Amino acid sequence: MSSLGPQPVSTPGASYSVSYTLLIRNCGQLLTLAGGRPNRPLTTDWLTLHDAYVACRGSKIVAVGRMGELDESQITTDTQVLDAQGRVVMPGLVECHTHLVFAGNRAHEFQRKLQGESYLDILASGGGILSTVRATRAASEAELLDHALRHLRDFRRYGVTTVEAKSGYGLDKETELRLVHVAQQAGQQQPVRVVPTFLGAHVVPPEFQGRPADYLDYLVREVLPELQGKAAFVDIFCEQGAFSVADSRRYLQQAQALGFWLKIHAEQLHDMGGCAMAADLGAVSVDHCDYLSLEDAARLGNGGEGQTIAVLLPLVPLFLRQEKYAPGRQFIDRGLPVAISTDFNPGSCPSKNLWLALSMACLKMDLTPREAIAGVTINAAWALRLESEIGSIEVGKQADILVLDVRDYTEIPYWLGENPVRQVVIGGCLQD
Amino acid sequence: MSSLGPQPVSTPGASYSVSYTLLIRNCGQLLTLAGGRPNRPLTTDWLTLHDAYVACRGSKIVAVGRMGELDESQITTDTQVLDAQGRVVMPGLVECHTHLVFAGNRAHEFQRKLQGESYLDILASGGGILSTVRATRAASEAELLDHALRHLRDFRRYGVTTVEAKSGYGLDKETELRLVHVAQQAGQQQPVRVVPTFLGAHVVPPEFQGRPADYLDYLVREVLPELQGKAAFVDIFCEQGAFSVADSRRYLQQAQALGFWLKIHAEQLHDMGGCAMAADLGAVSVDHCDYLSLEDAARLGNGGEGQTIAVLLPLVPLFLRQEKYAPGRQFIDRGLPVAISTDFNPGSCPSKNLWLALSMACLKMDLTPREAIAGVTINAAWALRLESEIGSIEVGKQADILVLDVRDYTEIPYWLGENPVRQVVIGGCLQD
Ligand SMILES: [Zn+2]
Ligand SMILES: [Zn+2]
Repeated sequence: MSSLGPQPVSTPGASYSVSYTLLIRNCGQLLTLAGGRPNRPLTTDWLTLHDAYVACRGSKIVAVGRMGELDESQITTDTQVLDAQGRVVMPGLVECHTHLVFAGNRAHEFQRKLQGESYLDILASGGGILSTVRATRAASEAELLDHALRHLRDFRRYGVTTVEAKSGYGLDKETELRLVHVAQQAGQQQPVRVVPTFLGAHVVPPEFQGRPADYLDYLVREVLPELQGKAAFVDIFCEQGAFSVADSRRYLQQAQALGFWLKIHAEQLHDMGGCAMAADLGAVSVDHCDYLSLEDAARLGNGGEGQTIAVLLPLVPLFLRQEKYAPGRQFIDRGLPVAISTDFNPGSCPSKNLWLALSMACLKMDLTPREAIAGVTINAAWALRLESEIGSIEVGKQADILVLDVRDYTEIPYWLGENPVRQVVIGGCLQD
Repeated sequence: MSSLGPQPVSTPGASYSVSYTLLIRNCGQLLTLAGGRPNRPLTTDWLTLHDAYVACRGSKIVAVGRMGELDESQITTDTQVLDAQGRVVMPGLVECHTHLVFAGNRAHEFQRKLQGESYLDILASGGGILSTVRATRAASEAELLDHALRHLRDFRRYGVTTVEAKSGYGLDKETELRLVHVAQQAGQQQPVRVVPTFLGAHVVPPEFQGRPADYLDYLVREVLPELQGKAAFVDIFCEQGAFSVADSRRYLQQAQALGFWLKIHAEQLHDMGGCAMAADLGAVSVDHCDYLSLEDAARLGNGGEGQTIAVLLPLVPLFLRQEKYAPGRQFIDRGLPVAISTDFNPGSCPSKNLWLALSMACLKMDLTPREAIAGVTINAAWALRLESEIGSIEVGKQADILVLDVRDYTEIPYWLGENPVRQVVIGGCLQD
C-alpha cells in the first residue's frame, strides 16, 4: 500500500495555535477511502494506511500519515489523544437514504406480511404508507422531533455521522413542510449531520386519489417554492401504485428548474425505466434498482463528471421477503458506482443497522468488502453531493471518524448484524 | 389475557426480611412465557400480563401480577425499583447453541465464500473448521478465556442471560478439556450463565484422518470419562465430511451410557436421518434441521414427556448463502417445538445478534412473533434441560429479566437487526 504521506495544513502567519486538538494514533489499518480516480465515485481503489494516525484541528482533519511521520511538535497538553491500539479506523458512516421523520410504527402490519400479504396488497387496502401518513399528520411537531432525535441517537451509536432524511409521510403542504423543518431541527439539536430531502411525491394522498398529475402540480405550485434553502434534493417514488415515469419526468424537470438536485425511488418492484429517465435528467442518485436491467446499468455507468450513483437497499427485499436483489456486483462491473443504505422507514425497512445492510450487500449483491465499505462512506457522500466534505479521511475534510473493535477490514461485513463501533468522532468531537 | 395473579412465596417463620430486593413495575406488556401445557415446550400459548409487575428476592422471582395486585408492604427502602414506564418486559434470552470458545476468526475465508466457494469445498481444502482448530490449539488458556469473556459481554448487551458453549475446536484430549474448562471459567467470571457441551466429535482431526470410528472410540475411552460433572451434554456433527449416522448412533449411545444428555448437529446440508436417529435415542435437541423432512418432523413431534426440541439456526443459511431454511412453521404445525439460536461460531455464523436470528426465523421460517419469542426463551431453556429454572417469568425461577425499548411484542422481530434491550437483570442483579 502506498502512503498518503503527512499533509499538514499550511497556516502562514496564523496567530492561533496550530497544535492538534484531536489525535487518533496507532491505527492498525486506517481506511482512508481516498485515493481513487479524481472526481469519480469509487469502487475498490481506496488506500489503506497501516500503523497510521489521523490528526484534527477543530472540526477538520489536518494531517494523515504513518506513525513514523507523526509531527510530535503538534501534540500539546490540550491535544485529546485516542490510542486505537492497532484497530481499524475509518470515516464515519454516511446514511444516504432514510425516511427519518414519521410517527407510529407498522409492527402489526409486519404480522400480515408474515402471512403472505404483499406490500402492494397492503397499500391497496389503505395500509402501508397511508397508515403512517395518518399517524404522522396527527402527531405534533414536538412528538415528531422527539422520535427523530431518538432515531438519530441510534444511528450515532452505529457510527453513522450523516443521515439523509426524506419527508413524504405528510402529503399535504403543512405536514410536508413540518417534516422538512423537523429534519432541520433534529440536525441542529444533536451532533449527527442531517440532510433533508423533499419526498412529497411519495404516494398520491387520499385528497388527490386518481389524480397523480394534479397532486404533483400542487407540489410544484404550493410546496417547492417554500423549500428553497431548506432541502437541496427533490425525490419521487416512481412505481406502480405511486407515480408513472411520464409524471415523474415532468415533476423532476420542474423541480430541477427551481434549482433542486434530483433523486428517484425506481425499479424497486418493476422495471419501468425510472432510473434511466432520472439519470438522463442528471439525477444525483437512483435508489433501489432491484429490477434495473444490466443494459440500463451499463448506460448509467457512463456518466462522467455528473455520474449518477445507484443507491442499493438490500434490507428492503429481505424485510419484504421478495428475494430479488439489485445485482450490485454487475452494476460495478459496468461502471455504475453504488452506495449502500438501510432505507430506514416504518414500512419496508424498520432497521437503522447500516452494518447489516453492508453485510447483506456482500451476501446478496456479491459486493466485496472493499466495495461495500466504499458504499457506506465516500460513495454515499457522492449520493448527497457532499463528497468534498465527508466520506473519507483526507486533509481538509470533516473529522467524522470511527474507531472499530476489529483489526482487519474484512471483519466489517463478517461479524454479521453486529455493531463494530468502539468510538465515534463527529466534527472533531468524541461522542459519548 | 388472563392473569397469573399475585403469587407470593410463603415463608412461614422466616426470620430474614421478606421484602422485595428488586421490583420492576409498570410493565406495559409482561411477556411471562408461562401458561402453556404443563411439562411440554411451548408454541404460542403463553400469557401476557398488561400493566404488570415482577418482584424478586435475591436471585429469584417471588411475585408476578397486575399492578393493582402489588403488595406495597413488600417494598422497603432497600428495594431497587425499576419503572418500565409501559414498556415490554420479558425473560432474559437463552442462547442454546453456540461455539463460544475459539481463537482467530475466518473473515478472509468469508471473502472466498463471497466468490462462490462452498463450506464443504473450504473444509476439503484444509480451511474451515480445521483452520480454527489450528488457531485454537495454539492459543493459551488465558487467551481463550479472554476471547470468551469478550463474547459473553457482547451477548449480555443483547440481553442474553444464558449461553450454551460447545467445545469442538480442539479435537484432542488436552485441548478439548481446556475448552470445556474455559467455558466453565468464563461462566464463573461474569454474570451470564454458561452451559458447557462437549462437541469433541465436531469433525475428524488430522491425526485420525479417514478413521472417524477410531476417533470416536478415542473420545469415549480417553475424554468422556474426564468430563463427568463438567459438561452435561454430548453433541456430534452428523454430516457428509464429518460423521455418519451409524458412527453417530454408536457414539451417542456410548455417551448416554456414561450419563450424558444428547444433542446432535444434523440435516444441516443433507437429509441423512441424523435427527430421527438422535430423537429415537432421546436426544434433548436436534440442531439445524434445514433438510429435515416433514415426515421425520411429524415423527419427532410425538415425543411426549421427553420431547426433543428442534433448534433452528436461521443465520447459518443466510451467512452460507444456501437459502435452504428449516420449515419451522410446518414443524410447529406437526407438533415439533422449536428453539431459535445464532449458532455463533467463526465459520458459518459469526453473529451474536440473537434478535436478528429471531427476525430471520419469522422472515425465512414463517414463525409468528409469539412463536419466535418462545424460541429464544422457554423453548431454548427446554433445549438445555433448564426449563424449570429459566426461560419464563414465574415465581421460583431465576430472576433473568429484560426491559425492552418497545411497547408491543410484535415490535421485537419488526425492528430488524436492532438490539431492543434497555435493561438486563441476571439473577436479580441489574447489569450495567
Ligand atoms: Zn426509500
Ligand atoms: Zn453448531
